[in-house]
Amino acid sequence: MNQTSDYGPFFPHSRKVYVNGSQPGVRVPFREIELAHTINPDGSENRNAPIRVYDTAGPNTEGPLPALRAPWIAGRKHATQLELARAGTVTPEMEFVAIREHVAPEFVRDEIAAGRAIIPVNRCHPESEPMIIGRKFRTKINANIGNSALGSSIPEELEKMRWSVLWGADTVMDLSTGKDIHETREAILRHCPTPIGTVPLYQALQKVGGDVNKLSWEVYRETLIEQAGQGVDYFTIHAGVLKKHVPLAKKRLTGIVSRGGSIMAQWMQNKGEESFLYTHFEDICEILQSYDIAFSLGDGLRPGCLADANDAAQFGELKTLGELTQVAWKHGCQVMIEGPGHVPMHLIKENMDRQLADCFEAPFYTLGPLVTDLAAGYDHLNSAIGGALIGWYGCSMLCYVTPKEHLGLPNKEDVREGVVAHKIAAHAADLAKGIPNAQDRDNAISKARFEFRWEDQFNLCFDPERARRFREQSMPPGEKFDVKQRYCSMCGENFCAMRINHDIRENDE
Amino acid sequence: MNQTSDYGPFFPHSRKVYVNGSQPGVRVPFREIELAHTINPDGSENRNAPIRVYDTAGPNTEGPLPALRAPWIAGRKHATQLELARAGTVTPEMEFVAIREHVAPEFVRDEIAAGRAIIPVNRCHPESEPMIIGRKFRTKINANIGNSALGSSIPEELEKMRWSVLWGADTVMDLSTGKDIHETREAILRHCPTPIGTVPLYQALQKVGGDVNKLSWEVYRETLIEQAGQGVDYFTIHAGVLKKHVPLAKKRLTGIVSRGGSIMAQWMQNKGEESFLYTHFEDICEILQSYDIAFSLGDGLRPGCLADANDAAQFGELKTLGELTQVAWKHGCQVMIEGPGHVPMHLIKENMDRQLADCFEAPFYTLGPLVTDLAAGYDHLNSAIGGALIGWYGCSMLCYVTPKEHLGLPNKEDVREGVVAHKIAAHAADLAKGIPNAQDRDNAISKARFEFRWEDQFNLCFDPERARRFREQSMPPGEKFDVKQRYCSMCGENFCAMRINHDIRENDE
Repeated sequence: MNQTSDYGPFFPHSRKVYVNGSQPGVRVPFREIELAHTINPDGSENRNAPIRVYDTAGPNTEGPLPALRAPWIAGRKHATQLELARAGTVTPEMEFVAIREHVAPEFVRDEIAAGRAIIPVNRCHPESEPMIIGRKFRTKINANIGNSALGSSIPEELEKMRWSVLWGADTVMDLSTGKDIHETREAILRHCPTPIGTVPLYQALQKVGGDVNKLSWEVYRETLIEQAGQGVDYFTIHAGVLKKHVPLAKKRLTGIVSRGGSIMAQWMQNKGEESFLYTHFEDICEILQSYDIAFSLGDGLRPGCLADANDAAQFGELKTLGELTQVAWKHGCQVMIEGPGHVPMHLIKENMDRQLADCFEAPFYTLGPLVTDLAAGYDHLNSAIGGALIGWYGCSMLCYVTPKEHLGLPNKEDVREGVVAHKIAAHAADLAKGIPNAQDRDNAISKARFEFRWEDQFNLCFDPERARRFREQSMPPGEKFDVKQRYCSMCGENFCAMRINHDIRENDE
Repeated sequence: MNQTSDYGPFFPHSRKVYVNGSQPGVRVPFREIELAHTINPDGSENRNAPIRVYDTAGPNTEGPLPALRAPWIAGRKHATQLELARAGTVTPEMEFVAIREHVAPEFVRDEIAAGRAIIPVNRCHPESEPMIIGRKFRTKINANIGNSALGSSIPEELEKMRWSVLWGADTVMDLSTGKDIHETREAILRHCPTPIGTVPLYQALQKVGGDVNKLSWEVYRETLIEQAGQGVDYFTIHAGVLKKHVPLAKKRLTGIVSRGGSIMAQWMQNKGEESFLYTHFEDICEILQSYDIAFSLGDGLRPGCLADANDAAQFGELKTLGELTQVAWKHGCQVMIEGPGHVPMHLIKENMDRQLADCFEAPFYTLGPLVTDLAAGYDHLNSAIGGALIGWYGCSMLCYVTPKEHLGLPNKEDVREGVVAHKIAAHAADLAKGIPNAQDRDNAISKARFEFRWEDQFNLCFDPERARRFREQSMPPGEKFDVKQRYCSMCGENFCAMRINHDIRENDE
């Protein structure tokens, strides 16, 4: 086990450790949080074992990342992880994620082979550390970044990407629609340790000057190949929005709220033709197969408000996504399915159940769902409620929502809020669905809390810097926080239940 | 219908309206949000009906509040709402809450009579606007304020109280444990339009200099009477923590985390006696009956971490709380039951089911539950996840948790975050449990969103000021937000799905 140090000032007492696998180059990072000793009433000390947590932050470097996966890619034909799994192979990528998830490599292989999980790994993105998306593994989260016509630069987007993975994003989507799309994506791909997803339609529309009528299979295909060659690991493709669905969406309160979905609906309406994403779906499969890019079949008809949740448009598209899943699988492509959106709590389970049934257990990847339409400014929290629920029910990845949702482009602090909110939701889901050992870290922080090990309390939680800052802020004027305090300002010393407990126990002895 | 104006700068285009009942003085406030017209593609306009929402903010005055309920109280014997309901009376308080909740007064009476709902209304707190806590009504939220030995003044606490009810707190608990407890409470009671709850044990402990061994029934009784006379509407009383439960709690990872519970456990251990809250429970009932103060039977053994959730200590105490509920009912007292705490999602439903069964459907009032132990700094969000779930399952009131939970005393901004987070959770629960018309406001904001009525989008949501500020913040440098913009910086104009939808629909016509 090798060691390097450091996650910067945000995660004190954390160090990066690696666990080696059996295959060459399989070296899996974890973040290990060192804990203080427990001091017993008699003054003796007990060691607390460090806690090792899943680590998304990647190598600690400002420059382009090393091409971790290059030797693995060079050593095999252009088969996908799905094809290799079906052939019985445990790839280095599968072993890598098995170690990350504390499961057997063969279990990973079998889940991939069955289509129940995916490892998005474009052979042109050798810098990425393999991760798995599937409901029998830890619930993942995605952070969206990217510029719009109204702002943001490449350094800002790179900073948001680094910030996202530092706080725990498992994948990052570059949703740029502004200028320098190609260059922004290139910079992100060369510096990002997680899979990168995109919506190629955005750049295709850019290429034709924003004129939907000029969109064509040819310009879309050219865009796919351009992005594939750069190394994008999964593509959101709204191939399930068909001509027949558009009239269903017109009855809605908020119509079509997916950008990709609305663009394709407009194109179909103006042309009177079926979507080229659907008619050319097998051509798309061939391209994605040759790079091992995963499909993220977009829900172009996701509900944009509670009133439109679980309607005929949404579930009609879901059926089509299921058909396309089987076509993609036939071509050896990995597939996940995107989901809503805005859904009240009591209608969430139906989304999960239907997705599993209609899409043959391909992993589900949802945006929220938001459980009310009224939470602008707090939509990260709104989304965390729905995300925790659907994660528990079996959703494999939650797309984060930031406090700026419905209002504007997130800044760096919004990204942090969004990522941490969804880390909490995903972890809550893992606890509820019974992921083995998911509760270890909770137990460690609770023990630290009971023993007034303040440093450990900060360091074990999802945002140590914020927890410590809040603790310090709440000191009375003129007093400084002392990590040895056996109470906090919430109750003060006399009313500290934890302290009284110790008195009770010590009295016992 | 009379009108006065204004909720200050935080709720623009809102005005206070009143609906009169049939009984004298029954005049129920609502906040009415005025909406802009819809402008059709042909330039014509359609009116959007204003949205009327439940209003907790109280009369818009800086001084002491008028004694709204004084004539009702003067006109009857010292019976409780429960006793009056059992006798078939629809009190003015019941009619008031019936109008607030859009249900029949007789329905309110029947729920009160059955013990399934309470209206906490101390006859010495005539300033409060009646509200109901019960699972067939809107899910309520409580905000905790109060000083500790480490800080805060009376003006600060008054400001937190006003802030709490402005953002939507349905009740406020004054948990002061620092200095000037009596004066702080007096100031809060005379200015607060919602019921006030306290934990009398805190002041009783103060009175004996913080020495648990000096606590006695006598000093506790004196404290009850002092607070009762001031007008406290509900008392948290940890009468279910018995000698037999204490050993169960010692096996826990974090022992007893309730202040009241730990104080009583220490008292019992030191004295070797059963809790005076239990042995004198009927004496307590007599006091509470004579003022119509509601019991909030405290869960002194609530779990303080996931590892301790749903354990023998917790459920043992719950059984005792059920027995005490029946004793209190026998005395004509209104009762609700407090609940956890820290509980992983999959164990939440058992809490609700057992509470309903063991406590004969008395309303449940929970703190969270928090669904992970790891969210310090984000515990309001953590609590909103568990709160939304248990609210859906039937919990009647959620105690807010602020971002400072586990770290220190909340400041004013923390109070706002905590209240809004739990308003979102409570509303999500109401939508899921099918409260009639709960979705009207969601539908109104979604229509506004689709029609680019930005002002209405801000004004309809839970925190208009924050939503507007975030919208303005996300403008590109040098540009100003214009409420007539038909897109936002999230996607920019070309990629705005909502705008494209309009193009699609207009093309149709």
